[in-house]
Amino acid sequence: MKKYTEMTKDELKEELATLEAEYKRYQGMNLKLDMSRGKPSKEQLDLSMGIMDALNSSVDLTCEDGTDCRNYGCLDGIPEAKVLIGDMMENSPDNIIIYGNSSLNVMYDTVARAMTHGIMGATPWCKLDKVKFLCPSPGYDRHFAITEYFGIEMIVVPMTPDGPDMDMVEKLVAEDDAIKGIWCVPKYSNPQGYTYSDETVRRFARLKPAAKDFRIFWDNAYGIHHLYEDKQDYLIEILDECKKAGNPDMVYKFASTSKITFPGSGIAALATSLNNLEDIKKQLKNQTIGHDKVNQLRHVRFFKDIEGMREHMKKHADLIRPRFEAVEQILDENLGGLDIGSWTKPIGGYFIGFDAMEGCAKAIVAKAKKAGVTMTDAGATYPYHKDPHDSNIRIAPTFPSVENLKQAALLFTLCVRIVSLEKLLQE
Amino acid sequence: MKKYTEMTKDELKEELATLEAEYKRYQGMNLKLDMSRGKPSKEQLDLSMGIMDALNSSVDLTCEDGTDCRNYGCLDGIPEAKVLIGDMMENSPDNIIIYGNSSLNVMYDTVARAMTHGIMGATPWCKLDKVKFLCPSPGYDRHFAITEYFGIEMIVVPMTPDGPDMDMVEKLVAEDDAIKGIWCVPKYSNPQGYTYSDETVRRFARLKPAAKDFRIFWDNAYGIHHLYEDKQDYLIEILDECKKAGNPDMVYKFASTSKITFPGSGIAALATSLNNLEDIKKQLKNQTIGHDKVNQLRHVRFFKDIEGMREHMKKHADLIRPRFEAVEQILDENLGGLDIGSWTKPIGGYFIGFDAMEGCAKAIVAKAKKAGVTMTDAGATYPYHKDPHDSNIRIAPTFPSVENLKQAALLFTLCVRIVSLEKLLQE
Repeated sequence: MKKYTEMTKDELKEELATLEAEYKRYQGMNLKLDMSRGKPSKEQLDLSMGIMDALNSSVDLTCEDGTDCRNYGCLDGIPEAKVLIGDMMENSPDNIIIYGNSSLNVMYDTVARAMTHGIMGATPWCKLDKVKFLCPSPGYDRHFAITEYFGIEMIVVPMTPDGPDMDMVEKLVAEDDAIKGIWCVPKYSNPQGYTYSDETVRRFARLKPAAKDFRIFWDNAYGIHHLYEDKQDYLIEILDECKKAGNPDMVYKFASTSKITFPGSGIAALATSLNNLEDIKKQLKNQTIGHDKVNQLRHVRFFKDIEGMREHMKKHADLIRPRFEAVEQILDENLGGLDIGSWTKPIGGYFIGFDAMEGCAKAIVAKAKKAGVTMTDAGATYPYHKDPHDSNIRIAPTFPSVENLKQAALLFTLCVRIVSLEKLLQE
Repeated sequence: MKKYTEMTKDELKEELATLEAEYKRYQGMNLKLDMSRGKPSKEQLDLSMGIMDALNSSVDLTCEDGTDCRNYGCLDGIPEAKVLIGDMMENSPDNIIIYGNSSLNVMYDTVARAMTHGIMGATPWCKLDKVKFLCPSPGYDRHFAITEYFGIEMIVVPMTPDGPDMDMVEKLVAEDDAIKGIWCVPKYSNPQGYTYSDETVRRFARLKPAAKDFRIFWDNAYGIHHLYEDKQDYLIEILDECKKAGNPDMVYKFASTSKITFPGSGIAALATSLNNLEDIKKQLKNQTIGHDKVNQLRHVRFFKDIEGMREHMKKHADLIRPRFEAVEQILDENLGGLDIGSWTKPIGGYFIGFDAMEGCAKAIVAKAKKAGVTMTDAGATYPYHKDPHDSNIRIAPTFPSVENLKQAALLFTLCVRIVSLEKLLQE
């Protein structure tokens, strides 16, 4: 098909009329489809039903070090959970705290602690006139919501297929001691599915921040969430890299089993240096006596070890892969060659990043919504919900059935075409 | 036996010599006993093993409103958990948020939120020069640890068998708008086992605090934790009472199943007014997508309803009651009539409060420790660990076996006698 950008006004008008008729047909179908959030599908959840049998009333709930998991105690997690999650995160169990059911909660608490008490003896952020975070964007809306909630000024750093623009990151953190952190989803990033290159990770580790209490918030949410066995991204381990670079305390690394077993009923973890752990535990002991050890044990008994977890992730991949491929095929078939949008082709994670023509994202999402297909709000992938180009849209293909997903993706591409035509006609 | 306070010096010396020989005998026994923390015993934990079978892989994990408990969502808890916990707390499900595994964590987060964001539009506490809390004492050390951690000045309010000294509470909160809260364990209080009288609760509800953002932190940790079926304390419901008194937003009420099922693997909850809930959810949605719904469902399926929970609590009582009675019998037999200490006789909760002669508590606890019996640190029941009379000691009888407990209590009374004799000899 001819590029829309090379069509005459008349050609554009003709195309638009055809597509509007098509759109009306969709509106008549009373669709109610959702491509907005990175939720596992029912079939994926079914994969983990075995965890409900991992413990029962005849199982001894004593963990390796003799702790009765049923009683109080154990602030930082049971040893066998630290080993399993340590293997998952590629960190030593000694560097890990096992938390409750949500890594988002751990990140929130990490920012909250820095606000009220500061990091390793530095001034509490709430006592400073200005605190800033770098926000590689497009990025994860819930990260940005935390920093926005705490009144932290967010600075957009452009994302590239290799990770954030490191020239900009290096320059900004070196110049401005009000910059206290950066949000990173380093592997199969949300929403583009990019993985930081070796060079990017090494440059992160070698940052020379003006603020001593600058920390990298490294949310490795999709560390083992591959789509393919034969095509996988690799990410250099950041704690090790920081240690080698003489910046051992510069990173907080987060992960969870939310997209491995059951979201909301999994276990979350933080990996960081021993100095940071000591600093954190001074606070944590005031906040809780300990997290849910029975659920930690349940996860260990279910997976046994990291190999068990990897095998489990292959089953997730088998369910997610066809969904990604279905969406990508529809994008290719319906938008390929039209010169009105581009999209990523991740080999892991939960999202596809789509970039529409400048100024079209909000209109596309609204148009899809009107025909019964919910997308993530346009702008959500940027701090303050402000996409400077009104261009980025996050596609979350995991939750709907393949059939529904195909319908939703078809409608989405139709909306992209219509809105792009309208824009071209206005120019 | 003659009162120690009426003995001659020679009589005191003779008694001391006898008891010191007895103490040496204990030291030779290499005891390692613990009466320090309010932990359930192994037998109590065994009572809840059935909860491990409440869910399994063949159970549908969909809750009443159609939510799949395995997936993301449901910020404030599943409906059936709100009903169960609502019945437990004597509050409407509409006034409840179900949290994660720890009510201490909820209290901490409640203070933390007030620090960084203020309560219902009031100035964040971290922006104020001074924030104060009233601390009825003796009280719960972990409450005091939270306010101390946040740099909140703690003011001791004396406890009476009817609750805190309400004349003092009323006067202080009316005069000083820096007083933002008060810690309360209103039923079977920690450590004395006192229950606030109807009059006390009504006076709480009718407080006229100078600070609009003053809140009562009502930790009803032992609401259904009776020792007897035929002798129980009753506590007036505080939310209702505050509403009647025109102070609907003045209280945050906390509870959990930590001492009902498994500590650390239970569910915690907050009950408060709709205004407060709205204020809290504005924050909570940034902190988490939701708490562990599968565990909420597990609790509902295990207990079915509040009657099931009450039946379950009777089994706990059957295990705890003999322990309380054993300690009380030993206190009576060994200290009764000596005029060197007094203690409470609670009919619920987890603790017995002991008051030694002024200036003796630290020495008694240290002496017990030397012979292998760990008590809660003397002073722990007061803010900043400073008991102005060095008199109060918390006895936690639930965790040890009855046999061990008897040994520990015997040694404890011996230490009380020796330290009291030493004090009397110095006078």
